[in-house]
Formats: sequence, structure tokens, C-alpha cells
Amino acid sequence: MNAPLITLLTDFGVEDAYVAQMKGQILAICPTARVIDITHAIPPQDIAYAGLVLAQAVPHFPSETVHVAVIDPGVGTQRRIIAVELATRTEAAAEVRRQRLVLPDNGLIGRLASQAEVVAVCEVSESGYWRSRVSSTFHGRDIMGPVAAHWASGTPLDAFGPRIDDMLRGAWPQPSIRGATIAGEIIAIDHFGNAITNIPGSYLTAAHAHNLEVIVGGRRVQFHPVRTYGQQPPGASVILTGSHELVELAIVGGSAAGHLGLKRGESVCIAGG
Amino acid sequence: MNAPLITLLTDFGVEDAYVAQMKGQILAICPTARVIDITHAIPPQDIAYAGLVLAQAVPHFPSETVHVAVIDPGVGTQRRIIAVELATRTEAAAEVRRQRLVLPDNGLIGRLASQAEVVAVCEVSESGYWRSRVSSTFHGRDIMGPVAAHWASGTPLDAFGPRIDDMLRGAWPQPSIRGATIAGEIIAIDHFGNAITNIPGSYLTAAHAHNLEVIVGGRRVQFHPVRTYGQQPPGASVILTGSHELVELAIVGGSAAGHLGLKRGESVCIAGG
Amino acid sequence: MNAPLITLLTDFGVEDAYVAQMKGQILAICPTARVIDITHAIPPQDIAYAGLVLAQAVPHFPSETVHVAVIDPGVGTQRRIIAVELATRTEAAAEVRRQRLVLPDNGLIGRLASQAEVVAVCEVSESGYWRSRVSSTFHGRDIMGPVAAHWASGTPLDAFGPRIDDMLRGAWPQPSIRGATIAGEIIAIDHFGNAITNIPGSYLTAAHAHNLEVIVGGRRVQFHPVRTYGQQPPGASVILTGSHELVELAIVGGSAAGHLGLKRGESVCIAGG
Repeated sequence: MNAPLITLLTDFGVEDAYVAQMKGQILAICPTARVIDITHAIPPQDIAYAGLVLAQAVPHFPSETVHVAVIDPGVGTQRRIIAVELATRTEAAAEVRRQRLVLPDNGLIGRLASQAEVVAVCEVSESGYWRSRVSSTFHGRDIMGPVAAHWASGTPLDAFGPRIDDMLRGAWPQPSIRGATIAGEIIAIDHFGNAITNIPGSYLTAAHAHNLEVIVGGRRVQFHPVRTYGQQPPGASVILTGSHELVELAIVGGSAAGHLGLKRGESVCIAGG
Repeated sequence: MNAPLITLLTDFGVEDAYVAQMKGQILAICPTARVIDITHAIPPQDIAYAGLVLAQAVPHFPSETVHVAVIDPGVGTQRRIIAVELATRTEAAAEVRRQRLVLPDNGLIGRLASQAEVVAVCEVSESGYWRSRVSSTFHGRDIMGPVAAHWASGTPLDAFGPRIDDMLRGAWPQPSIRGATIAGEIIAIDHFGNAITNIPGSYLTAAHAHNLEVIVGGRRVQFHPVRTYGQQPPGASVILTGSHELVELAIVGGSAAGHLGLKRGESVCIAGG
Repeated sequence: MNAPLITLLTDFGVEDAYVAQMKGQILAICPTARVIDITHAIPPQDIAYAGLVLAQAVPHFPSETVHVAVIDPGVGTQRRIIAVELATRTEAAAEVRRQRLVLPDNGLIGRLASQAEVVAVCEVSESGYWRSRVSSTFHGRDIMGPVAAHWASGTPLDAFGPRIDDMLRGAWPQPSIRGATIAGEIIAIDHFGNAITNIPGSYLTAAHAHNLEVIVGGRRVQFHPVRTYGQQPPGASVILTGSHELVELAIVGGSAAGHLGLKRGESVCIAGG
């Protein structure tokens, strides 16, 4: 058997001992694990953004990977912790993968779950799999990390608690399309300042190839439709289908967010000619 | 045997090649190692803060883990490098773990050593275990990393140099208690802006449950005593025992440091009613 | 066989899903890999700086490590992707190591290649080793990561595409020396604010030991020649041969870049007495 894989996604930053404490607890239970950081740079308590990153990252990992996601403003209150098994399909749909997640039941899993088949959900309640001393403020270290480590070590899902069928899925903005007019919004500004929208690339058609008109946050801005950044010179504003298969607004060699003042949450309207 | 674990804690940041050079040197000596980052975001040369993170992180790791900590303003001078074996107890005190550390002898280990049993200390002096070419400015890569890798590979501690009994332990502020009046200070501002004090949670008693009075940095500030953040609405100032089992000042869903101007080093006085 | 090592060097930052997607793709193909971050904090599209970090980091890793470097402003255009095998020598020249790289053919490898023997270069063209769906904007995830994972799993280099002999090597500033007068430039400001020049430490001779004169960016600045930082008190300006075996300008316990306004690209002229 390969060494088990456990990924971590948190809003803890990397300057304190929090992430290391989770890794230590996990490795003390599952000494062969390889622990992979998805990111610890989620803005504090930003469940929507964390849910987006989770949905983008998880399907790329091999089957049986255990993912621990800790964006947990309700820690220590009545919010539940859940262990979830999902079946995802790879891009070629040739392979079904089992992804395992341990996370608070606060909607964080919603976007990912909408793209996958939910195989099983358990409420994490069996304290025998937790750290022996559980704090009121750090269940990532004291409950979620240890449960993930036991799961990766071979403990079956149902050992962690009873099945439930009312997992929270949250809500997130949906794009709409009417004829050649598409309405959506900016859901992320990435590291390069590209504005990622919630509009699937497949919404763009031949009708948008030449007379594309884009209104962002109420302002009409000119974007050149391209297939990749390098098709226009540095400084050009471009619109394209990015690697998430979502429509993206970018400036070649620069930051669209910086230069055009684009912000997460702003509306995006695209009209074809 | 499981693949050995080696952790790294430095003030190197992650934008240069320093951390990668250490990892490469370690893996070239101990090719099966799993290298875990504790953090590389210690403020430059901040031994006190690094010592706090080390003390918080190390006891969570499994027995036999080798920890390399490089906050080393005296690199290349007469300061010693030490290899230390500590026995720590897990929270349930059910298990004793052997933690191994390689680090400069500048007090960095002090806070951790005060919570553990010091089993053995060697001065690192046998250059046969070092990189063949040793720079004057980067002993993390040239001495400490290689020694850690050899230790993780099975070389016994005493091979690295002679036993010593005068390891430096540094000094750090101690809290005091007189009746229901507790005096301490803020020792860390964490990623969320929570102010972590050096006051053990166990100092808070029934006397503080209702008429708690807090003076921070000479200013009287109102804090609600809670068990966890979610017990008060967003924006409320709360006082609680955090996951380090230390008293912590926080703002629900916000930054206590930002909103209340709290700073590391400020005095904290708590009086009960 | 030990678990294969694959390193990553990118300009992706760590706040998005990009790095995790690459790691997932790699691990899905090579489930036993250990994936090591060199850095993801290269300034966006800064090929020169990335090439420097690559040259500093790669030779420290053990033989057979596969390094993936993605600074790729030309993604999706006609620029090639290459797989390169280099032979590097360790500091003691006692051992030759095979380093394997997968990266865009944009000069990124140039500085490293100038310090090594280029054993073989292939253009990556066999799409059977790529992700089944290849985006126009993220070849790190869809081509380079998968090729690295197959290489680490045992696929021979020549399977990835035909040999080529015109790999781009870029250009970077070279220092010059005339008698005791050395001219170079600042090629990096590190995390501590030290200014790293492109002047080999071996250029400094006895002639520079006492009457050293340094002109940086046209300004004459006094630096004390030292072997290591701690030889002067905090605040002193010092000049020394750093851990990269390059001349470095530093302030003891402080930031030379911050205090002296040093910038990458500024000329450095050193005269001896």
C-alpha cells in the first residue's frame, strides 16, 4: 500500500504553530502519511472562497486521498463536523475516484459536492478517535486532523459516527444565459490579478467571437477574446476560458484587478454581436 | 521502519533558495526522509517568538522526529550548535515521546525544554557529519540540516560531539498571581489577530466568571468571558482559554490586535470580582 | 527504490488552487512521489529571478530528483516545453548527480545549465503523457507536472519527445575584474534585505582586505569586510562572501536594502587599496 495522502486547507496562515500542530497530531496517529498543503492562505473565515478552492483542488488528487478543510468560525458551538465520501470523475470521465473529506458542516463542501456524487456522510461524534484532550477553539487539531488520520490508516467511515442526510451545502451565485447575453459575477481574484468569473467557458459561442461586449461592475470595458494570454501584447485586456474552464478577465503580463479595479463579487455581463 | 520525519523552523521566508537548499542537503543524506515545514515566517532573528512556536509545535509530533530550528544571528561566531534529546509527555500523559532537536545554542530551546525532560545534550563538533564545504553564514544548510539527516538515518547522538551540561535556556516573561489578580503579558499576536498571553487558562477561576476586569497596556477594556468565540456575536470582545491552554483576548470574527491596538509585549492584568 | 522526489518552483503564490492542482495531478500519476516546494513566491513572470533560485537550489538535491519549474508567460503559444537531464557536481566534486528538469524553453534553465553538464534535452511533444484535457493557460498542471510524474515513475526521457540541441539559455549580467577593481551588479535582495551581487567571492583578494571601497548605484557607501555577520555590531554595514559564494552587502541584524536603499539591478563597483 502506498503511504496515505492527507491534504490540508485552512485559514490559519503559516506564521503560527497551528498548521504544525495539526501535522504532528496526524503523523502521530498515521506515521506513514504524506501531508500535502492545499493552502493556508484562505482569508479568515471566508467559507465561500475556501469552498471554491476546495472544489478546484480536490478532484485532481488520487482516489482515497483524505482532505481536511478547516474554515470553522463556529468551532466549539453546536455546528457539526462531518466525514464525507464523494465520487468524482476525472476529466476524461474514464476513472471514478473516491475523495474523502473531514470538515465542519457549514456549507464549505457545497460547491465541490455539487460537482460530485455524494456517497456517504457521517456526523463525526465518536470521541474515541479524537485527541484525548479537546479544546473549545481548535477542532482542526483535536478532532478533524485525528479523524482524518484514522480514516487514512484504515478505520472505516462508519466508525466515526452515524450517517446523516442533511449536510449543509451553502449557496453561491449562479450565472444565467439568455440568447447571447450572459450574466455572472467575479468569484475570485487570483494571485496574478486575473478575475475569475462563475461563467462556464462553454457559454461563450461563435456569437461572442467578434463583437464581444463586457460590462463589469456597471462599467463597459473593452476585452479582446483570446485563447491564451500570449496572443495579445503585454498590457492588453483579454477575455478567455481559463484553466478552471471558467471565463476569466485578464491583462497580459499584468494585473486586471490592479489596473481595472476589478473586485470579487462584481457583476459581469457579456453580450455577443 | 517508517520514513523518518524531519521538521524545519526558520526565519528564512520562502521566496529565496535557502529552505530548498536545506531540504536538498537533508534528502541527499537521508533519501527516505519526509521533511515537514513548521514555519519559515519567524520574524528575522526573533528567537523569543521562534522559541514559543517551537514549544507549541514539537510535542505534537511522533517520537523520534528530528526538529531543525535555525534562528541564528550568531552564525559563524563562537556560539555553539547543539543536538538535544527531550522526553515529552502527550496530553493524556499516557505516552512519553523522544523529540530530537538540532539548533544553535542561543536560548531558542528554552521554553520547550522547560516543559520537557532533557535527556541528553551534545555540542555538535564532529565535522565528518557536515557538508564538506561549510560557509560562514549558513550553518542551517551546512551543519544543522546534515546532522539532523544523519541522526534521522540512525547515527547515534553521541557521534556528533561531546555531552555538555550548560545549554543556554534564555529567559521569558513569567505570569504572576495574587488572589484573584493575575498579571502577565501578550506573548504573541496570531494570524487572526488574537492576543495570546502567557497566563495559563488554569489561573482563571470562578472568581473571574462574572466580574472580570482586564487592563491591557494600561487601558481598561471590556471583555466577555467565554468558552469559545461563537458564544458572542461578531464584533464582541471576548476573553477565553485558547488552544495553547493560555488566556487569549479576541474579537469574534475580527482582529483584536487590529481593532483594540493590542501589541506583543503589552502587560495584561486580570482582576476578579 | 526510494519514493521519487519531485520539486516545484513557480510564480503561482499559495493562495489559489494552482499549486494543489499540480500536486494532485502528479500524485495521481506517481502515487509514491514526495513533492517538495522550492518556492511559489517568484514575482509573476520573473524568469531571471526564477532562474537564479533554480540554479541555487537544484544542485543540492539527490540524484534522479525531477524538478518542475513553471514561470511561463508564453503558455499556450509556440514556445516549447523541454525535459532536460543535467549532470551536476557536489561541492567536494566527489559525486556526480543527475538532475532532471521539466520547464518551458524560455531561458529559465540558462543559469543552472551554465554550471552543469547538459546530458540530454528533449522537446516535450508526446501528448500521451499529458493530462487528457489540456488547457491553453495552465501547462504546469496539464503537461509539465504529468511529464515529471511519468519521468519519476520510470518512463525514459526519450519517450517524451525528440532530442533537440537549440534549447534557449537566456542571458544574465556577468561581472568583470581588472586588477583590484571589480564591477558587477545586485542580482537579488533576499528575505533579510541582504543584497546579493553576481560577483564571485573568489574575486576578493588580499588587496580588498583593508582599503575596500564600494560604489553602489553610483553612491559611495562604507562597508566593513567580514567573514560573517556577527563580527560587527548590529547596525554595521558589512561586505562578505555569502552562502552562495557570491559577494553580499548586508547590515548586521537589519536590512541593507531597507536602510541603504539598495535595489536589484544596481551596479556595484569594488576597488581595493
